[in-house]
Amino acid sequence: MNKLAIYHKSDSLYSFALDAETAELRLRVAKGDVKSVKLIYGMKHKFCQKQENTDMRLNCSDGTYDYFTVRLRLKDKRLAYVFYIEGADGEKCYYSEDGASKTYDFSLAYYNFFQLAYINENDVMGKVDWLTRAVVYQIFPDRFCRGGDGESDHITMKWGDKPTPTSFAGGDLWGIIKKLDHICALGVNTLYLTPIFTSDTNHKYDTIDYYNVDPHFGGNEAFSLLMKECKKRGVRVILDAVFNHCSDKFDKFRDVAENGIKSPYHDWFIIRGDKPVKRPLNYEVFSSCEYMPKWNTANPEVQEYLCQIGEYWIKEYGVDGWRLDVSDEVSHDFWRLFRKRIKALGPDKALIGENWHDSQSYLIGDQFDSIMNYAFTKAMLDFFVYGALDAKGLSERLNGLMMRNITQVNSMMLNLLDCHDTHRFYTLCGKNEGKLYNALAVEMFMPGAPMIYYGTENLTEGGYDPDNRRCFDWNKSGEFTEKVAALTSYKKLPALCEGDAKFYSDGGLFFAERYTDTQRVTLVVNNTNKTLSARGYTVGADAHKITVQ
Amino acid sequence: MNKLAIYHKSDSLYSFALDAETAELRLRVAKGDVKSVKLIYGMKHKFCQKQENTDMRLNCSDGTYDYFTVRLRLKDKRLAYVFYIEGADGEKCYYSEDGASKTYDFSLAYYNFFQLAYINENDVMGKVDWLTRAVVYQIFPDRFCRGGDGESDHITMKWGDKPTPTSFAGGDLWGIIKKLDHICALGVNTLYLTPIFTSDTNHKYDTIDYYNVDPHFGGNEAFSLLMKECKKRGVRVILDAVFNHCSDKFDKFRDVAENGIKSPYHDWFIIRGDKPVKRPLNYEVFSSCEYMPKWNTANPEVQEYLCQIGEYWIKEYGVDGWRLDVSDEVSHDFWRLFRKRIKALGPDKALIGENWHDSQSYLIGDQFDSIMNYAFTKAMLDFFVYGALDAKGLSERLNGLMMRNITQVNSMMLNLLDCHDTHRFYTLCGKNEGKLYNALAVEMFMPGAPMIYYGTENLTEGGYDPDNRRCFDWNKSGEFTEKVAALTSYKKLPALCEGDAKFYSDGGLFFAERYTDTQRVTLVVNNTNKTLSARGYTVGADAHKITVQ
Repeated sequence: MNKLAIYHKSDSLYSFALDAETAELRLRVAKGDVKSVKLIYGMKHKFCQKQENTDMRLNCSDGTYDYFTVRLRLKDKRLAYVFYIEGADGEKCYYSEDGASKTYDFSLAYYNFFQLAYINENDVMGKVDWLTRAVVYQIFPDRFCRGGDGESDHITMKWGDKPTPTSFAGGDLWGIIKKLDHICALGVNTLYLTPIFTSDTNHKYDTIDYYNVDPHFGGNEAFSLLMKECKKRGVRVILDAVFNHCSDKFDKFRDVAENGIKSPYHDWFIIRGDKPVKRPLNYEVFSSCEYMPKWNTANPEVQEYLCQIGEYWIKEYGVDGWRLDVSDEVSHDFWRLFRKRIKALGPDKALIGENWHDSQSYLIGDQFDSIMNYAFTKAMLDFFVYGALDAKGLSERLNGLMMRNITQVNSMMLNLLDCHDTHRFYTLCGKNEGKLYNALAVEMFMPGAPMIYYGTENLTEGGYDPDNRRCFDWNKSGEFTEKVAALTSYKKLPALCEGDAKFYSDGGLFFAERYTDTQRVTLVVNNTNKTLSARGYTVGADAHKITVQ
Repeated sequence: MNKLAIYHKSDSLYSFALDAETAELRLRVAKGDVKSVKLIYGMKHKFCQKQENTDMRLNCSDGTYDYFTVRLRLKDKRLAYVFYIEGADGEKCYYSEDGASKTYDFSLAYYNFFQLAYINENDVMGKVDWLTRAVVYQIFPDRFCRGGDGESDHITMKWGDKPTPTSFAGGDLWGIIKKLDHICALGVNTLYLTPIFTSDTNHKYDTIDYYNVDPHFGGNEAFSLLMKECKKRGVRVILDAVFNHCSDKFDKFRDVAENGIKSPYHDWFIIRGDKPVKRPLNYEVFSSCEYMPKWNTANPEVQEYLCQIGEYWIKEYGVDGWRLDVSDEVSHDFWRLFRKRIKALGPDKALIGENWHDSQSYLIGDQFDSIMNYAFTKAMLDFFVYGALDAKGLSERLNGLMMRNITQVNSMMLNLLDCHDTHRFYTLCGKNEGKLYNALAVEMFMPGAPMIYYGTENLTEGGYDPDNRRCFDWNKSGEFTEKVAALTSYKKLPALCEGDAKFYSDGGLFFAERYTDTQRVTLVVNNTNKTLSARGYTVGADAHKITVQ
């Protein structure tokens, strides 16, 4: 037995409360290495004297490790436990905080058992239920639809021309309102808008005024109507919270630029010296963008200022959640406060980080509900685009992702194939409509909320920024749109919202299952150029089948 | 190479900031399995284009795993990295968020590099400097020393009689004041008092009044003088914060017992039903102690109430820190708030959890500074008492403990051989003075603050509670006291406070080294019954040697 591959940790994604009475425990072992795992458990304060045991289930494999899991309904909210592992080679061992051992002295167990010390309800990660049922549509407003006639002075490109980093196409919120029927017909129930607050770039990730929607987008008036029309249709709205940095034209930064250390806002930014200087750059910025000075989120005044913005758009306009830009570079300390403030307005207000990487430290209940699932994006690319994964490899990769966060977080993940920061998936997969459609199907089956980047339904092409931000072609036929709508309709099934997930492969086909006690929905994907059959399914090249039981 | 044994995680104890400009990275691999590890790193936003690399150092082994580490001074506060590992068998691999791989595509690295996303200073775990230099003396006040003549009505036992769970010996704070010279002569610079607030038990872990020192201990008057006398001598004082539960005689619990759901305090506790009932128990308690109802620390009113207590004793009496009773069963959410409130009064106010287990989730900067290091206790017992570890085994175990928390936390750990909740170490090791003295020496060399349980310096014996709470015998000779004082004097050396640690063995001897750039202090321990020699040291049975270079 490869005992060095065994992993477990108390109070982590390996040991957490699903709710006030239920614990989920996971044990990682080397793949194919372990025959059975027993959980030996008991009430924490009596464990040395009295233990029970139960079998853990081989839940999944990520290709390197197998994961055994168990869910326990607890009579007492304090759980002590160790594992008893039988290897495929017949070797047996206990596994405690001190690692693997042939014997285990239960009389001294208080020193080294694993524990779920006590389930305090205010530490249990809650679920934003609507997010588990959401089908999200991401819009880059300047390129989605013009509400008017395109006569505005700020417009610098013809609708449909190749975008440049600085061009304005004139899309606005009035345009989004016009197209809400199109969006709803797609089965979408949630909009995520990239930034809409006043800024002088087309992307608006450099905010100048957090309290006003950019006039080019229609101002607060248009946003107010958009919210009203969305509520009418049962469509939720997530906005982009750019709280890592602002624009160098933001009034408080300008005050510092003018008055230096005498400005009351000097400590709102991170400046080495009196005044901010661009060459050599003496203040912290996003990436190397000197026009995007970084907020000092260690400053309580800044924390308060940003929290109030987060609250304002929820209280005044009924926004349903925030997507948090560059969230992994903003302090944990700030996000903890921000969550408190936002969740006080409603525990169903969603907080979704833009974290491209493993983000456990943000996803334990005190910060975000979930993140944009770029690890899922990478898996989709590796399978459908780069050929780095076969069907088995994909199932293993997705299993691995399911074991990267706690179950509640998985069910709220924002899963995406592409966005305004990546190449268009359709372009990357060589404009193969079948592959895109297959990928969207997998996205529907991945626990969490599938996100569709505007234009995907129209087979919009696009390379890297700014090419991935092309104007929506409203003259193109809607054939693929209907196919996407057919897919999103599956997100109405309970199994695809609250069900557990299982990924596996057979005969070269990729299988995804979502299931509850009463429903099982199966997706079978063929990512090859020939027809394949397995388990009673025959699926054509670059196609998929879905069955509901 | 056992690639399944490799472990690393971003934003964890494997990847953290030591200060605003320095990152420490750790990589775990199978013991003896890896020849070299290179860190390939770069500025996060440019990593795909430009990488640098540096060698990681084999820092230590815990007997199962080897740990490679590196400390990096960062020019940019955003670090991206992957590892390049060469196995002892010549196999080479990259190691990224996607695991081990033969090749690594740097052009797609933004999907799966490891990162230290950004060092936000308000997330960096600070050091309580005095704690790294502290020599702590734990006192159970009822048994340490009587200040008066022992005529108080509450006293139920003669000084020196065998204690029972309910007996009162009459020790008090006046007695501690009388003995401050003895304590200081021991080299102690910090007192940790088990609970002193009003309660009707001898241990006082069931608080009735958090704002008044028990009259049996001399009340607030005696405490005020104790603080004054301690400040005069440069002795710091840590009190016991019993915030998991209180006494069922606490006025607010009594109010609920009387008025049930109509009491404004019903939600201050966790009660299933109208009024708290003992049989069958319908409210949450500590362990199964029905006289200790658990606080509902999810209730903001309770949070505020307890925070104010924490603040009061610091603001009014100048207390230096809190030891947090049963801290792992109290909510993270509460501790986060408590830390904010306490640290606002002074970042040097210490917060030390009573967590018996691996406690990473409490020790990442938002909750405690450190914990009572019971894993160290277990290592000492396994080596000196149970014979479960030899010198090599101990060095490996201690190395493992050093890799269980971040470096700052290690330097603030409260290391103990025994306390009011365990058998006396001296009794467990068969009253072998040499073994106790050796164990105390190891304690001095363990990063963090050594804690000496009252009476250790007097070779006090004692089995489990209540026998471990015997009266201090002030008539016993002070020979061992002087030896302990000789040991604690080493804690004045910078290397034993701020130095890194190295544990190893040779020729059956256990070696502990603490070193800074300018000082190296070495401890050599012989835990056998015959004289041993290695590396120029000859050490007698159950003895040790210390050299300062």
